[in-house]
Amino acid sequence: MAKVLTPRSESYSQWYNDLVLKADLAENSAVRGCMVIKPYGYAIWEKMQSVLNRMFKETGHVNAYFPLFIPKSFFSKEANHVEGFAKECAVVTHYRLMNDPNGKGIVVDPDAKLEEELIVRPTSETIIWNTYKNWIQSYRDLPIKCNQWANVVRWEMRTRLFLRTAEFLWQEGHTAHDTKEEAIEETKTMINVYADFAEKYLAVPVIKGVKTANERFAGALDTYTIEALMQDGKALQSGTSHFLGQNFAKAFDVTFTNAEGKIDYVWATSWGVSTRLMGALIMAHSDDNGLVLPPKLAPIQVVIVPIYKSKEELEKISDVAKKIVSKLSDKNIEVKFDDNDKKKPGWKFAEYELKGVPVRLAIGTRDLENGTVEIARRDTLEKNIVAIEGIDKYIIDLLDQIQNNIFTKAFKFRTECTTKVDNYAEFKKVLDEKGGFVLAHWDGTPETEQQIKEETKATIRCIPLNNELEDGKCILTGKPSKQRVIFARAY
Amino acid sequence: MAKVLTPRSESYSQWYNDLVLKADLAENSAVRGCMVIKPYGYAIWEKMQSVLNRMFKETGHVNAYFPLFIPKSFFSKEANHVEGFAKECAVVTHYRLMNDPNGKGIVVDPDAKLEEELIVRPTSETIIWNTYKNWIQSYRDLPIKCNQWANVVRWEMRTRLFLRTAEFLWQEGHTAHDTKEEAIEETKTMINVYADFAEKYLAVPVIKGVKTANERFAGALDTYTIEALMQDGKALQSGTSHFLGQNFAKAFDVTFTNAEGKIDYVWATSWGVSTRLMGALIMAHSDDNGLVLPPKLAPIQVVIVPIYKSKEELEKISDVAKKIVSKLSDKNIEVKFDDNDKKKPGWKFAEYELKGVPVRLAIGTRDLENGTVEIARRDTLEKNIVAIEGIDKYIIDLLDQIQNNIFTKAFKFRTECTTKVDNYAEFKKVLDEKGGFVLAHWDGTPETEQQIKEETKATIRCIPLNNELEDGKCILTGKPSKQRVIFARAY
Repeated sequence: MAKVLTPRSESYSQWYNDLVLKADLAENSAVRGCMVIKPYGYAIWEKMQSVLNRMFKETGHVNAYFPLFIPKSFFSKEANHVEGFAKECAVVTHYRLMNDPNGKGIVVDPDAKLEEELIVRPTSETIIWNTYKNWIQSYRDLPIKCNQWANVVRWEMRTRLFLRTAEFLWQEGHTAHDTKEEAIEETKTMINVYADFAEKYLAVPVIKGVKTANERFAGALDTYTIEALMQDGKALQSGTSHFLGQNFAKAFDVTFTNAEGKIDYVWATSWGVSTRLMGALIMAHSDDNGLVLPPKLAPIQVVIVPIYKSKEELEKISDVAKKIVSKLSDKNIEVKFDDNDKKKPGWKFAEYELKGVPVRLAIGTRDLENGTVEIARRDTLEKNIVAIEGIDKYIIDLLDQIQNNIFTKAFKFRTECTTKVDNYAEFKKVLDEKGGFVLAHWDGTPETEQQIKEETKATIRCIPLNNELEDGKCILTGKPSKQRVIFARAY
Repeated sequence: MAKVLTPRSESYSQWYNDLVLKADLAENSAVRGCMVIKPYGYAIWEKMQSVLNRMFKETGHVNAYFPLFIPKSFFSKEANHVEGFAKECAVVTHYRLMNDPNGKGIVVDPDAKLEEELIVRPTSETIIWNTYKNWIQSYRDLPIKCNQWANVVRWEMRTRLFLRTAEFLWQEGHTAHDTKEEAIEETKTMINVYADFAEKYLAVPVIKGVKTANERFAGALDTYTIEALMQDGKALQSGTSHFLGQNFAKAFDVTFTNAEGKIDYVWATSWGVSTRLMGALIMAHSDDNGLVLPPKLAPIQVVIVPIYKSKEELEKISDVAKKIVSKLSDKNIEVKFDDNDKKKPGWKFAEYELKGVPVRLAIGTRDLENGTVEIARRDTLEKNIVAIEGIDKYIIDLLDQIQNNIFTKAFKFRTECTTKVDNYAEFKKVLDEKGGFVLAHWDGTPETEQQIKEETKATIRCIPLNNELEDGKCILTGKPSKQRVIFARAY
């Protein structure tokens, strides 16, 4: 069968585009930079949402919904935020269309101009803190721990499906606290939630760390991040959690009376992950045959393909297959029996490989005689003949093994692609020839960071949490440094 | 305790506004016409989503996501659709802001004008059919049955929380079929799904029917609707399902090769319900004390309030309460034990009444001695002393009873507020003095319908499905009619 994907070795970026399209995950829409998330892709996103939603609720958060539009003036209220967010964005200026007086379709009604333009939210700190102002009077009203699932728009010039699109789906948590300590604690709790989710569900190992001032969220005092490594050696920022200090409370005048009766500004955090995680999932595990999905996020975990020559054979196989379906469904395993008569087994095998279904069962008449099935696992492409008796337990174990194996493989790859370097020549050589995370000393200044970025396209991904302290010299300036930071070229 | 709500008898609309705000369901935002859905309101919406999502999946639908923005020209492609939807909407004209050259905050960058304006979707038929064009070649690609959960914007001048807001949340299903019959079947299936949901979950009885041409969705050949009656005698359209014929397929040139090898246009449906259902839920059941929630959609189904004088008493009560919580949680009942020491029992009673929690347990020390608790039901406000032994079964039964009772009460109200009238004077008298659904003969012309609407503000809500045929005369023109239709003043 002809390969449907460009091999990764030929062009990693073409392979990615091919895969997103061919596996029916997403496609570009008629609106520049906006994607259509197709049912199969959306089903994976829904699984992510469901797990994250549970994790958020377990850590004491509730969902709410805030407006899509933000008055332009709100952005000007927080000085750094306006620099970071109020530039490339969709601006609503009018609220009515009319028939073209010249009879050519419809045109914007010039009389329906808004007094103040509205911005389609690129992130919601401003509108939410303007709302929280009315919810908070006393320390008894705190903490507030809201999350919202929403679409946001950032007018990106260069877009790539899931990784960078003008509109994307995400969740954004916004919390309000009476003390600095509690807000910092919340920021850390959420980066830990994200790291757990990435490692246990996406099966993507991540490094937790703090961003440098250059890479901080606009308006934050500290940005925590989880950084993942893709198969092409580039980093992908996969989730961030921001300690916002009192910046937004001051910008929107949100004060509270503390237990001692004194008035103070409220402390804030915000944190988010987006459909970008779909990109991480795809790029971290998949191969030249298609997607490789971790079982915990696979919309179909097991597919059963019958191999038959006649209607009678199919019927016999169906009897057995349906019993297996029922057994697995009882154990909450999502299983599909594909008895579509219009497609051949070979086509189905390739299709489910492309779609990353973790486990495939093939059942032929000889299997029936022997009381066995053929089981193929997507991650290693290994096949085994297995007894039907006790198959549910076998598959539950296998799904666990696959989940673990995918993670272990990604972890091993990351370990191999993490390099300590001690001078700038070596730094550039590793970036060009090997890629991956490069651990190097840095003098701590934004200027050095900026110069390295301009010269090598590598950025500081983060300063890892609980980083090992080690005396060294900045690779660019030779100035003293106390720890290595993680550099990489990134998406 | 002072009543927090304006009584319904004094002002129904003020009562509604009070209730939405005081029960923490939603509030107006800083953006005109856009609401903030607060955590308690959103929790109810999430429950609705979860049930509907299951019902959609059971009827063979999958979720997907399409762009927020629609190119202006797309609206002009379907003649009726442009009249209905491309008028009052949010128009994005620019994609960048810049610092004001005069130093006054930020302004729209005049150089960043879009070549073609983008409309924030008021509904997604156009962008979706433009997408389906690429998904459909042959009858083998059909049916396509996608749903999306999304926000939409219609620039309403007069807004009311949940009932009519500029931005609202909804789901919109969009299906594509190879035959007219299958599309009509789908349209009916979905109005039945909506009716089931309304009656079994919202506990709101609805009349299923077809809209007249005047009231049809812009671009539809037929619009099916479910119509509910609120306590003030006004109707609320609660869900619609549209048979779109081949209108959108023709507008976007979506053809397919049928089984005989001939090329034809694809048949379409669309259907949706929105956060307006929150309005229906609130207005159908609630009373002057607050919300009355049907147990199946209540975020908290049972609340336990301890009545105690000392810490020791609270501890003893807590032991018992926690056992009850655990028993009920095991049965998937959402239960809250409110041991907040800062609020008095009386305050808690009023609060949970306001929030519509279906069942309240109060436990005092005397109850412990007797092995009983006091159970109050929200719908009838009745209280009973019940043995702790076997309380889980008692509560499960009670929740069922409450769900049924709320529906029965609403059904009885609707029956009482449905009136057959045979002349125009009586028609107007009933509308003014009694309200409700008015069953009357109509000559079938849009002109008569329009005149009645102008003179009485009553519209034809629907022609009921399986309507009884009966010869009669139009209340306005005296012309012959074969059936009664349902008139009402509506939200």
